[in-house]
This record gives sequence, C-alpha cells and structure tokens, in this order.
Amino acid sequence: MMDFNQPVSGNDLARFSGLQTFMRLPSMDTAAGLDVGFIGIPMDIGTSWRSGTRFGPKQLRQESAMIRPYNIQTGAAPFDSLQCADLGDIAINTFSLADSLSIIQKTYEDILTHPVIPMGLGGDHSLTLPILRAMAKKHGPVALVHVDAHADVNDEMFGERETHGTVFRRAYEEGLITPSKVWQIGLRGTGYTAEDFTEAAGWGFNQRLAPELWHKSLISLGKEIVESIGDQPCYITYDIDSLDPSFAPGTGTPEIGGLTTMQAMELIRNLKGLNVVGCDLVEVSPPYDTTGNTALVGANIMFEMLSILPGVAYR
Amino acid sequence: MMDFNQPVSGNDLARFSGLQTFMRLPSMDTAAGLDVGFIGIPMDIGTSWRSGTRFGPKQLRQESAMIRPYNIQTGAAPFDSLQCADLGDIAINTFSLADSLSIIQKTYEDILTHPVIPMGLGGDHSLTLPILRAMAKKHGPVALVHVDAHADVNDEMFGERETHGTVFRRAYEEGLITPSKVWQIGLRGTGYTAEDFTEAAGWGFNQRLAPELWHKSLISLGKEIVESIGDQPCYITYDIDSLDPSFAPGTGTPEIGGLTTMQAMELIRNLKGLNVVGCDLVEVSPPYDTTGNTALVGANIMFEMLSILPGVAYR
Amino acid sequence: MMDFNQPVSGNDLARFSGLQTFMRLPSMDTAAGLDVGFIGIPMDIGTSWRSGTRFGPKQLRQESAMIRPYNIQTGAAPFDSLQCADLGDIAINTFSLADSLSIIQKTYEDILTHPVIPMGLGGDHSLTLPILRAMAKKHGPVALVHVDAHADVNDEMFGERETHGTVFRRAYEEGLITPSKVWQIGLRGTGYTAEDFTEAAGWGFNQRLAPELWHKSLISLGKEIVESIGDQPCYITYDIDSLDPSFAPGTGTPEIGGLTTMQAMELIRNLKGLNVVGCDLVEVSPPYDTTGNTALVGANIMFEMLSILPGVAYR
Amino acid sequence: MMDFNQPVSGNDLARFSGLQTFMRLPSMDTAAGLDVGFIGIPMDIGTSWRSGTRFGPKQLRQESAMIRPYNIQTGAAPFDSLQCADLGDIAINTFSLADSLSIIQKTYEDILTHPVIPMGLGGDHSLTLPILRAMAKKHGPVALVHVDAHADVNDEMFGERETHGTVFRRAYEEGLITPSKVWQIGLRGTGYTAEDFTEAAGWGFNQRLAPELWHKSLISLGKEIVESIGDQPCYITYDIDSLDPSFAPGTGTPEIGGLTTMQAMELIRNLKGLNVVGCDLVEVSPPYDTTGNTALVGANIMFEMLSILPGVAYR
Amino acid sequence: MMDFNQPVSGNDLARFSGLQTFMRLPSMDTAAGLDVGFIGIPMDIGTSWRSGTRFGPKQLRQESAMIRPYNIQTGAAPFDSLQCADLGDIAINTFSLADSLSIIQKTYEDILTHPVIPMGLGGDHSLTLPILRAMAKKHGPVALVHVDAHADVNDEMFGERETHGTVFRRAYEEGLITPSKVWQIGLRGTGYTAEDFTEAAGWGFNQRLAPELWHKSLISLGKEIVESIGDQPCYITYDIDSLDPSFAPGTGTPEIGGLTTMQAMELIRNLKGLNVVGCDLVEVSPPYDTTGNTALVGANIMFEMLSILPGVAYR
Amino acid sequence: MMDFNQPVSGNDLARFSGLQTFMRLPSMDTAAGLDVGFIGIPMDIGTSWRSGTRFGPKQLRQESAMIRPYNIQTGAAPFDSLQCADLGDIAINTFSLADSLSIIQKTYEDILTHPVIPMGLGGDHSLTLPILRAMAKKHGPVALVHVDAHADVNDEMFGERETHGTVFRRAYEEGLITPSKVWQIGLRGTGYTAEDFTEAAGWGFNQRLAPELWHKSLISLGKEIVESIGDQPCYITYDIDSLDPSFAPGTGTPEIGGLTTMQAMELIRNLKGLNVVGCDLVEVSPPYDTTGNTALVGANIMFEMLSILPGVAYR
Repeated sequence: MMDFNQPVSGNDLARFSGLQTFMRLPSMDTAAGLDVGFIGIPMDIGTSWRSGTRFGPKQLRQESAMIRPYNIQTGAAPFDSLQCADLGDIAINTFSLADSLSIIQKTYEDILTHPVIPMGLGGDHSLTLPILRAMAKKHGPVALVHVDAHADVNDEMFGERETHGTVFRRAYEEGLITPSKVWQIGLRGTGYTAEDFTEAAGWGFNQRLAPELWHKSLISLGKEIVESIGDQPCYITYDIDSLDPSFAPGTGTPEIGGLTTMQAMELIRNLKGLNVVGCDLVEVSPPYDTTGNTALVGANIMFEMLSILPGVAYR
Repeated sequence: MMDFNQPVSGNDLARFSGLQTFMRLPSMDTAAGLDVGFIGIPMDIGTSWRSGTRFGPKQLRQESAMIRPYNIQTGAAPFDSLQCADLGDIAINTFSLADSLSIIQKTYEDILTHPVIPMGLGGDHSLTLPILRAMAKKHGPVALVHVDAHADVNDEMFGERETHGTVFRRAYEEGLITPSKVWQIGLRGTGYTAEDFTEAAGWGFNQRLAPELWHKSLISLGKEIVESIGDQPCYITYDIDSLDPSFAPGTGTPEIGGLTTMQAMELIRNLKGLNVVGCDLVEVSPPYDTTGNTALVGANIMFEMLSILPGVAYR
Repeated sequence: MMDFNQPVSGNDLARFSGLQTFMRLPSMDTAAGLDVGFIGIPMDIGTSWRSGTRFGPKQLRQESAMIRPYNIQTGAAPFDSLQCADLGDIAINTFSLADSLSIIQKTYEDILTHPVIPMGLGGDHSLTLPILRAMAKKHGPVALVHVDAHADVNDEMFGERETHGTVFRRAYEEGLITPSKVWQIGLRGTGYTAEDFTEAAGWGFNQRLAPELWHKSLISLGKEIVESIGDQPCYITYDIDSLDPSFAPGTGTPEIGGLTTMQAMELIRNLKGLNVVGCDLVEVSPPYDTTGNTALVGANIMFEMLSILPGVAYR
Repeated sequence: MMDFNQPVSGNDLARFSGLQTFMRLPSMDTAAGLDVGFIGIPMDIGTSWRSGTRFGPKQLRQESAMIRPYNIQTGAAPFDSLQCADLGDIAINTFSLADSLSIIQKTYEDILTHPVIPMGLGGDHSLTLPILRAMAKKHGPVALVHVDAHADVNDEMFGERETHGTVFRRAYEEGLITPSKVWQIGLRGTGYTAEDFTEAAGWGFNQRLAPELWHKSLISLGKEIVESIGDQPCYITYDIDSLDPSFAPGTGTPEIGGLTTMQAMELIRNLKGLNVVGCDLVEVSPPYDTTGNTALVGANIMFEMLSILPGVAYR
Repeated sequence: MMDFNQPVSGNDLARFSGLQTFMRLPSMDTAAGLDVGFIGIPMDIGTSWRSGTRFGPKQLRQESAMIRPYNIQTGAAPFDSLQCADLGDIAINTFSLADSLSIIQKTYEDILTHPVIPMGLGGDHSLTLPILRAMAKKHGPVALVHVDAHADVNDEMFGERETHGTVFRRAYEEGLITPSKVWQIGLRGTGYTAEDFTEAAGWGFNQRLAPELWHKSLISLGKEIVESIGDQPCYITYDIDSLDPSFAPGTGTPEIGGLTTMQAMELIRNLKGLNVVGCDLVEVSPPYDTTGNTALVGANIMFEMLSILPGVAYR
Repeated sequence: MMDFNQPVSGNDLARFSGLQTFMRLPSMDTAAGLDVGFIGIPMDIGTSWRSGTRFGPKQLRQESAMIRPYNIQTGAAPFDSLQCADLGDIAINTFSLADSLSIIQKTYEDILTHPVIPMGLGGDHSLTLPILRAMAKKHGPVALVHVDAHADVNDEMFGERETHGTVFRRAYEEGLITPSKVWQIGLRGTGYTAEDFTEAAGWGFNQRLAPELWHKSLISLGKEIVESIGDQPCYITYDIDSLDPSFAPGTGTPEIGGLTTMQAMELIRNLKGLNVVGCDLVEVSPPYDTTGNTALVGANIMFEMLSILPGVAYR
C-alpha cells in the first residue's frame, strides 16, 4: 500500500497544520504517473447572482483536512490502489471569462495526454464546458451525470453563449455528450418559460426534478443510472447547489427544496461501476459559507466520487 | 400575457441590480386595478425574544430577485393572469405596538375597498391580528391556515393582550375566524401548562403538531384542509418559524424539530383550490439570518402562495 | 408543585433578562437536596480540529432561556416532581488536560455523595472519561448510550491516551462500562483503517452507523435500547456532532450525513424507562455556531434527557 | 479590603466560566448596603433604525469577565473602598415602551431610597428619561455629562414624545437637568434642520461636535467639565454610538467620524472629582456586534466610570 | 425649497421601510431636469482578489437611509438648491468586462447630454475608465482627485489592459486627464518594483502616500488641491480602500495603514470650490462587510461629495 | 536578484490561487541555505480566554498572498538579498501544553544549527518561551522588543508556570533575556494588583504603557530602542493584541485603547539597525476575526519585520 501517496495523518501532524493540498496529499507539477489528479479552477466571473467561488478551491482543500483515507461506510480505500496527488490551480485570467475557458481547455488537454482521472475543484459551473471539450476530444462524446438545481441549458445570458447557465446546451450542440446518457438530478427552482427544462428532455436528457426525490432514498436511482450508461466513458459534474441550502448555504444561486447530503451520498455510492473519466465539484462560494460547512460537504462529495473511481480497492 | 405586469428579467438587468421590489415587480401607490398587492409591514416591537423582523420586508424583497416568473415544478404562471404589484411598506409607528396595529388595520381596510388579494411581508406575527380584523369586516369570519411552531393563543404577555403570542385567541374571541375551519400546522416547542394547545383544540381548531408530521409528505394534509374549508374565504398566515431552524435560522423564536421546506411546499401546493383572500409571511429576522437563506426561503414561500391564488393560469 | 424549583417564567421576566443559569433555574453551591444538578464543564483543550467548546456551557445556558417548563410534545413535566438546580461550572485548569480530567473526576465524586443525577454541559468529549470513572466508582460498570459521529475508541492521539477521541476505549479497558450494554448511535465519517469501528464491535458494543438510520424514525431503536439495557444504571452521553451539520454546525469535528434533530428527539423520548444515573451534552462550539442555533439544539436535547429521567411526572 | 465584594478571580475560575454578573460580582436582590449597584435594562423598543439592544445587558456582562479589579492605568481600585454588586435586570414590559419607562422610573425610585449609585446597563437610550426623573426627584435637577453621536432633543418621533431621540428635550422641559451644566460630547451625523442642535445650545447646553475633537486628546475637556459642574450632583449617560463605528460597530444608529476609545477613556478619567450620582451605558446591540468587541468596549467604559466615582480608593 | 426633490423623512416612514433608492430620493428614468443623478454600476468582474462589489450599489443605497438631508457639520443643504434623483443601475453584462466597460461609457455619454452631475455607486474601480472617457468627450481632459490605497497605474494584469488596476495609466495615455492636475491621495501597500508609483509621479501626478498623512488633519491638503486645480472641470473618484480596514473592512483589496474617516471628511469638505463634474465611490464589497458599516461609510462619503458640488446652498 | 526565492507573482497566478505558503514563497523541509525561514506554530492550548489561535498560521499565510515583494513605503526589497522560504508547521502535541513547548524548543534548536533567522507564525504567546530558550542557548541572553497589551509576567496561572501569561517572568528568571534591554510596548488593560507591571520595571524592563503613546508617532520610540539595544542579538515578539481591537479584533484577549497599525509600522520601521536574530507574530485567532482583516494586519507586520532584518537590500 505504501507505494501509493498517502494523506498526511492527523496523528503525525495536527489537522490544522501543514500545506493546504486536497486531503493533505503531495503537491505535484505533472500528471505523469498519476491515476487521479486534483485540480483547482478558481473563478467566479461566470456567475449571475452572488460571486465568491474564486475562493472555492482554497476552501475545499482546507476543509478536506478533516477527511481520513478510509471510507468507513462503504469500505472503499482509494489510496490503497490509486496514485493520487494535488496538481495545484489553473492560472486562469480573472478578467476574461472567454480567455479563462480556453486556458482551462488547453490545460485539460495537456493533462489528458496522461492516463489520469482529473478531479476539478471549482469555481463556477462555466468551467465544465471546456473540460467536456477536452474530454470529448480524447474519449468522444461522454455520458454525463449532472447533479444540480439548474439544468444550465439556457441559450444565452446577456448575449453571451458561454456562462454558468448555458453549459449543457453548448455541450449538446457541440456533440460533447451522448444525450440519452445524460442524467440531470435535482432540478428545481423557477423559470422563464414552460420549456426551460422540457426542451432538454426532448434532446434525450434524463431529468429527475427534486420534488420527485423528496423523502426518498436515491440508492435505486444510482443503480438505474449505472445500468443506463453502461461502460461508456462518463463524466460526473456535481454542482453543490443541487443540495438544499440548509446543507450547503455557501453557494451563488441557492434554490430551496433540494437534495440532502444523505441522498447525495446514496446517489454517488451507487454510481459505482461507471467508467468515470473525470469529475468536478463546483459552485462552493466561501464568502457566503457562513456556517463554514458547505466546503466540508463539497470536500466529502469529492471523496465519495474518488471512492467509486474504476480500480479503487475495497477492504 | 403582456397586459400583466411582469418581473424585470434577469437577462435584461442583472439580478443584483434594480429597485428592490418584491420579485422585481412595478412599485405602485394604489391597489386600484390590482389582483394581488405585496405589502411590507416592517415591525418587531411585538416580539418576545430576539428582535430584528423590522428588516424582514427589505430582505424578503432583496432575495426575491432570484425568483423567475414561472413555477416550473407546478406549472403555475401567476403573471399570465393576475395583475400584481408591490405596494410598498406601511408607515407603522415603531414606538407603539398598539398604534401600529391600528395603522395596519386602517391601511388594510383601505386596500380592501379594492378587489385585491393583499400579500403581507412581515414583520412580527402581531401584525396578523389587525389584518384579520380588516378581513372579517369585509368577508365575515374567515377560514384560517396557520403554519407556525407556536399556537399564539396566549391570553396575555406582560399584561398585554395584543402581541405576537396572543393573535389567535383574540381572533377567536372577536369572531374573526371560523374555529372549525382553523388549521394550525407545525406546532411544537415547550409550554407553561398542559392546556397551552389543548384549549384551542377545544374551540374547534384543527391542530397538527410537528412530531405527527416528521418524515412524512404533507400532500394529503393539504388536500384534507382544502376539503375541510371548502369555498369559505380563507386567510393563510405563514410563520417562518414553522420551519426547522436548519432551514430557517433567521427568526426570533426558533424551535427545533420543525417542518422542512419540502413539506412546506407540498403543503402549500396542495392548498390549491382554497378561496384565498389574503396571505402573510412573518417572522423573518435578517440580523439572525447568518446563512443568508431564511429570507430566500420566505420569498419562495410567498411565491408558492401566489401560485395557488384563485385565477392563476397554468401552462 | 411549588415545592420544587421552577424556571423563572418568561412572563415574569423577559427571556432576554436575568441570570444565565440553565433554564433559568436557581443557582446553587451544593447538590444536597437535589434530584438533578446541571454542571458546566467549560473546556476545549481535548479537541483535535476546531476549538471553542470552552464557551459551550455559557451558550447552552443562554439559549436554554427559550425553553418553557412543560414538554408539550410528550407530556413530561420534570419540574413537577424533581428538584433541579444549576450547580455552576467546574474550575478546570485550562492549561492542562490531564489535570482538568482529574479535577472533573474529583468534583463528580463529591457530587455523587448525594443522590443526585448530574447533567453535564460540555465542553469537549474528553470530559466523559472522568465522569464515567466517578460513575463506576459509585454504581459499578454502567450501561452507556453514546450518540456521536465518532466512536472515540482510538488508542492514542499524539501519544496521549486521554483525549476526546479515546474516551470509550479507556472506559472499556478500565471496566467502567458494560460492553454489551453500550450503544453507539450515529457513527460515520472516515477512518484510518477498516478496524476503526469493528474492533469495538468485537468488544460487544452495539453500533448503529448513520447510513443505517437515514430516512428512518428512531422510535423503535429507542425501544430496543431500553429493552437491551433493562434496569442497569445507565449513562447517556450526547455528542452534538452526532447531528448533521445542517442542524448543528457549531461543533469542532462535524461530519456530513448525520442524524436529524427529529431523530434525536425520537431516540431520547423512547429511552424513557432507562435507569439513567447521569447525562452529558458535549462539543457545542459557539465560535463556529454562526447560525446561532447549535446551542439551542443542545439545550433542547438536555431538556429531552431531563424529561425521561426516572421519577419525572407526566400530565 | 476583603470586607468588600470582590470579582471572582480569573485564576480561581477560568474567565469563560461562572455566573454572568457584571465583572463577576455577587448577584443581589436589594441595593441595601451597597455603594454601587449594576442594573440591566434590557430593551430596544425605543429604537428607530436597527434594534437588538435588548440583549445589551447580557453581552456587557459576558464581556466584563475580562476586566480585572485594578485599573492599572490610573491606579483606581474601586473594590478596595466601595461595596458593589449586580442587581440583575429590570422586568420591563417589552410590548409597551410607555409602560417600560414607567417601570424603570419606579424601580429606580425604589433603589434610590438607598444611598447607592446605580449604574445602568442598556438597552436603548429611551431608558435615561425615567432614570433622570427618579434622579431629580431625589437630588433636584442634576448636571449631565452626555456622550453621544446624537443630541436626542427631537420633539417627537412618529408623534411619540418619549423615545430614544427625544430624551433630553423632555428632561429639559421637565426641569430634570440644569441646562448650563449639561455637556453633550461627540455630536455629529446629519439632521433635518439647521436648528437640530442649535436650539439646545440656546437652552444653555454645552455642545462639542465631533469634528472639533478629531485628532485631539480629551484630557483638557474632561477638566473643563469638572470645573464647570463643580459639586452639583451629576449624572453621566454614555451612548456607545458616540464612538466611531470602527471602535463600536454593534449599535443601532452608527455615525461615522466619532470618538476613539482612547478619547473616551481620557474624557472619563478626567471627569474624576465630579459628584456622580448615577451612570448608564446604552445602545450596545449584540446582533450587530459582529466583531464581538463593542460590548467589550462598553464594559470597559463602565469600569472607567466606576473608577471615578466618589470615594474610590487609589493605590 | 420644496420645489426640489426631498428624501423621504424618517419621521414620515420608518428608516427601515420604503424603496431602496439613494438617500430615499425619487427614482427616475431620465437625467433630464436633474442637477445630480445617482447611478449604480453593479460589477465585480474587474477585481483581482476578493470579489463581491456587484452588491455595492444595493448596500450603499440601503445604508444611505440613515442620512438626513442637512449636513449639520458643514451647513450644506444640498436638497435646498439641487434637483437630485436616483437613476437606477446600469445594465452591465456580467460575463464580459470589456462589454460592460463599453456599456458604461455609452450610458454616461447619454446621461451627459444633460447638464447633470453623475454620482456613480460602484462596483469595482475598472468602471472609472469608461466614465473618464465619457467625461473627457464632453469636457476635454479633466482634473482628477483620486483617493485610493493603490495608484492603479499598472500596464496590464494577466495580459488585460482594462482592469481595476490599470485605470489611470490608460486615462493618462488616452489624454482623459490633465496629469499635473491629478492628485492621488492615500497610496500605500506593497509593490512589484520601485517604479510602481514613481513612474506616475514622473507623468506629473501629485501623490500623497498614506504615511505622509498619518496623525494629521487633511484640511490643508484639501485647500492645496483646490488651489492647484482651480476651475478646471474636475472628477473625484473615491476608492473605499483608501480608508484603513478598521474603518472600511468590506472591500476587495484592503491595505493596512490607511486614512481615517475623519481625514476623508476633512479632505472632501475642503475640496469645496472645485468645479466638480462627476464623482464615484467604488469598491464596497458587501460579502466582506461583516461589521455592516463599510457601506455606511461609503454612503456618507457620497453625501459629503454631494455637499461640495457647485451650487449647493448653505444654511 | 533571481538567485533568491521570489514570491509567486499575482500576475502569473491569481492571488486566490496556489499553495498557501507565507507570501507565496517556496515550501522547504530544511533551513539549510536559508537566511530567513517562516515557521508555523499552530496552537491555542496556552490561552486563558478565547481560543482559536491554532488556525493562526493558516490564516496568516492565506492573507499574506496580498503582499507584493517590494516595500514601497520604505524602499526595502527583502527578496533582493535574503534567501527566504516557508518551513511549514511544527508538529505540536495539541493535547499537552508542556509537551508542545518542549517540541518547539527542540525544533528551534535544530533550526538554529543553521545561520537562519526564524520568523514564527503563532499560535498563542506561550510559544515564545521555548523559542527564547533555544535563542539563548545559541546567542546567550538576548535583547527583547515585546509589543503587547499584556506584560505576561504572571508567576503562575491555575498553578501552571508556563502559559501565555507567564512567558517573560520565566525568561527573566532563566536568564534568557537581558532585563535592561527588554522593551515592552503597548501595555494596558486591567490587573490584579498595583505591582502587576511595576515589579518587572524593577527588574530593569523598559515599559511604555499604551496611554503614554496615544495620539503620537512612534518613530522616535523606535529610534530610542535601537540606540538602547545596540548590536546585542535581539528578538522581536509581536502580540497582535498590542493593537487596538478596532484594528485587530480577531484575538483571544483584546484590550481597548491599544496601538494603531500606523504606530506599529512606525515602530517596526524604526527598529531598523537592530541585530535581529528572530521574530514572532502571535495571538491571531481566526474564529474571532470576523472582519477578516486581523490576519491581514498580522501578515503585514511580519513583512515589516522582514523588511528590517540585517542585510535587507533597499532600492
């Protein structure tokens, strides 16, 4: 086991100490030799209501110091079999959304020359579009598990076609995703028209609105998704605002009536078996995280996604 | 559709911009010509523990900027068929509770000379008593849906008979409400005597204590209430402290073990069909709303109540 | 009834007034003549992540001012039949964990010369070890209901054997508890090894991991515990981090996916019948309680534990 | 020295422990035998902008736990020569400002049957009017040192004549104060008319606007006031909003450009020699005290006022 | 006097009520007929560290409700002689800084077809560049009073030439300002090179670093500036981060050792006599304004700038 | 110049990105080859009132990302001539103060085998005692500049002789410092006896109480200290609570009436010329740093101390 990078133990160095890497893993400059690389994408210039997600990667790393290496609830021991490291932050251009998106795409294309699973720490949701472009370039159209309060299928916002609200329409139009293997979970809130969500359903997207999920375990939904997607390369994008604001207040466009963290864990744990090729966790906004726990939730969801990657050992 | 006032779109003017009216509706000085009027009642001098609700109307309006016009979860499109506007705030006397209550009553009596449904933004719960007096003057005794942690049926507090804890005993005594058509939902907390709630049950009030509702959908309760009340003019008063403090921390007298926002939405959506003649949403206290989301919850509950008013179009 | 101490009524003195004793009970210097004594144990030097629990007793008392004497949901009227008072805070040595633990033990041994049930207001969880030592000295090994996110059965932390993470291994080793009558409820989070929890299960501890409890009522679990423990003297230790951080954000080592306050109340109410000889409520950390409501939850859980003590009257 | 009550030492009981009395003094029910009595007056229903001062007395007491008994900067040792205790909170009627003011007056009249100097912990500034009425009844018109951002000489607010903005016009009209011996220090902000302050100057009030004091020591001003007032019985009322919001953010009607705490201490220390018969410290509003330090400032100003009372020993 | 718009009085409508316009002035859609127009420019996409200024205009308006119409400290009565109104917010494109800057310029050019003095409520400092372009188009190069912690004369940031750190280099290069009539007050912080500030001094800019101003009144500096600039059209841009973070914590790039609000008021009051043609107040970031008072400071500084505009009446 | 480590530029990587080292310097495991090493000492178990300083090093590093390499106000360019790096955090034992102090001493002794100036990031003030022990072992008794609200010369606290309040009595008794070359600046607050400070003055300590410094520049005091100490090896320990709480609210034992940051910078800048052999900055407590700026102040004071180290280049 000790051939793989291990998080610094809280018994060797107090948890409030040490470098702020994700889960206290080593910091590396290259993805060479890695199975999994954590990548910060600090940006908020794609947001439409509250900003602040530029500090998301920092805060996710800080709170991840609480997580120990073994998933006691599922038996997953990701650091027994995967070589993981923190690849640092992408040097985005904070004054230009368009330029930042192209920097992200280029960085991901470079990383994907290695056989590594990139796990992105956001940042606002606009970052997923350039990632999907890089993913599709390598893998062809991918299946998509998209957990979110919003479908993010607007055509434009203020005349712009690439923002945090238009990602999945662009991905659909550009053929980056396989529509029938797109699952959107947790949608809710309000809209401008009756077609806000239904148009995407017409493209083949599978949508589960939040009210359908209230009071329910999501175990079977997880299994249904795995069966539906099969072994097609699959990307998971987890928007923290899929969760109810009581669980994740620190986000830019909260919507009431969302998922619970219990449901989120049930869902992700039951996505085990998917051929996951990348993940991201977006929209944690620390200035609005007044309970201090939204980033903690986000870091744990990252760990749950890590725990279901192909090749993870179980004890 | 465009004959009716529409909220300013977030794509025309960024949501963090513009006048702070409820849901970005036009501001008007008169209820003439309106179907629905939003009215702020900024006060906290009727509270017994934490104050701060005087800033409730402001904060509810600010957070309502997030709500788009179409209720994607139920199909309700209130702005397709109802003329709505923001009527501003009542000029209460912040140094005298008694005087403020009489100003509220007088203002409501004036408004009710028009065929408008007033939707009040509180403010502490003492404001509901003068509203019920105005309502009863116009409609006779009304049915009442009262969602709250507390029954508010004390006889007096510090010798005062009109406070946020005595509203519904006064309403009962004065014949403003039909006891058998009063529904109190979400009651809990602790009391002084075994009779704190049971006396009101003896008057005919229908009470559902919170523990009876834990882990349950409230869809059937909503339907039961509609059936029970029939077409009698009905007033809905929604105290944000009916919700569990995890969902609505920013309130003056929080009680643990409350409703979830999911239950609140189930309940209200299934009150559709009631002959609603007025509503209020009370007890949002911004200085204690440290997660920033209590007012967001309140604004959404207002929108859900708007979505079930008589005459709302569905798409 | 008036032979027993009564909380100062909120109608005699506004709740935001008066001495900050638990539930506004009289403050006393001795346990003589008491059935129940509330004792503050203000410390945080046994914590491993966020500190701040040294202010826990203060904050629990402050928020307890909201609680009225009658448990309207269960009928319990503890002040009808039990003589209760606030015994103040233990004078710990804030510069030495070891010394503080021995002061606590000595203080409890003194208190337990009286036939009183001590209810401790923490403080970090390391305080439970000296209490159990005092309890076992008087009662022999006790049964234990331990509600917590963590099993607290580490062997050492930084070479120390007595910290907030090692309490129940020490208690087991020292024979302070009857292993087959130990119930650990709400365990979750992550660990260092697969044996983190299972070793304690091997000792005979009954463990219920949080995921087993999601979406469920805990009424039957409460009853199962009562039946299992029978009339053996039983100690209840309630770590506020057993609750999900959405309900109790203000704590030092929060873990997502926890209990709800509804479940906590179901559990405790159904522990009625146990021969409870002492209780504590630990790990409320006010500097992290940004919603202001973690201490409120803690104070209510104390009141629910009070409501099931042997001899409590019901109306 | 030990004949006088002493604050509990921080070396006997950790400062974060113990009963929340002012400066950890004994709590007493009567002013009999006391030289100085601290009295909480928890109210905010006389405020016109932000509320919250009802929690002021609590917070002032909590932060006063930091203050040790000896004033190292001036040599004052008040507990060497004065018998001091905490008299608890006045049982105001939180639903009626008028009633509360009359309760305060009555309570003070009772207290003043003893030869005690009452030191009031506010609470909003409207409480000073009934205190002055009680003072004048005992002493005749008093001299007044009034430190405040506002002159509080409005005639009415919303038609009310007794609020936190009208106190000193009423006191003037009723002959409770000697106009030529009234000193108003720190006035600033904005007004409705050019006469807002000048009218009171016409009555004989001595006013020092904040800009006159910027960048200056207030030592000589303190001495000037002592000389002007001589040995006439003198009341000191200290509104925390006299301080700049950088020093005291937690107050209801902050005004920029105020005094510094250094100036406040210079001023009070140099009021030594006045025949002080009572003091109050008002307008600390804990919900707005986000830095946590406004109450600390308030508690220290109370201690500085205590340090200059007639009869205080110096070491 | 009543021919001019007046703020709604706090005695007619409680300050916590009413529309959130600047100083409770009427809201208007056109600058026609106005002497002064307040304009919100809600943006933060030009910031390089903490974001959040997009909510600045809202918060400045909210806190401005505290300001009464008469400047009691200087005698200025701006509403006696100037027609003022709130012109609402500019509809910027929150996804593109470049596009937003051009929208701002166009909007200002339209406004400046009227003989109105625009007073901008920011928003991040990048907004001043397009305003200066519009100003120069109308007036030719303007004199500039620039109060700020930073000189904002970088050449580029991340390859971008128009950000909140490059404004005054661009303005210099484009000839929008008269270098010898530029005054930069309050500069401090740290830099990349020794030339960071000195290059601009070489262009003719007059710079006063903060340490030169510590402990001093700024009255004479104000007078010196007026004399230096004479009657050339002059623009004032006030960056809230010129103030020390103790006075204005809620901003994106705070630097210690800054101006006090007392100095800021001295400075502005002594700029009276300048031919001011426009002003702005930028960089208030509400999510970081945890004391709640940065926006209050900003609103007061706006009022002080209003108070020295040409034509203001004095009482 | 590029032979020396340089902070990562904010124009290469946005300031909200990258590893959280002090001033974005490289992280190193050894002091070999360094002129200056930054060392985190994360602890709060030596505090007596509010805890939380265990998170101080983290927060100081986070806020240091704002600081650019050149001290524009003094001309100092420390990275032109000194090799600097971040040495990470000391692995203290958070459950034992005594053990932690000995770990610190041992770590410092190891570091001091290299010719490096260690700059410690605290942590509570108890950490300075073991550092002085290591310093004296290498250099013999050192001169001391101690900026603090408290003299920290208690004999014991709760019977303990090594806490954050006893450091300098122990250092005196053990001969670690040269009494006549000890300068204590900023002392204030309250005490237990008249001898609290005067005894240390009797040992030869030079003390400047805060009131002596109010309203004054500290330039001449800095020069006086340099002259007094001469070229004796000198240690500087800067307690953030020396500053007034308006400038540094986030600390454990705040005292009103303290230094300003302007004074702090004047003082340190004029200590240039001292033979500084080590520094620390202690008592920043992030959970109480609600304005977010205490750590920013602390990081800047570290940078000012760095700027006066022997051998720093000036441009």
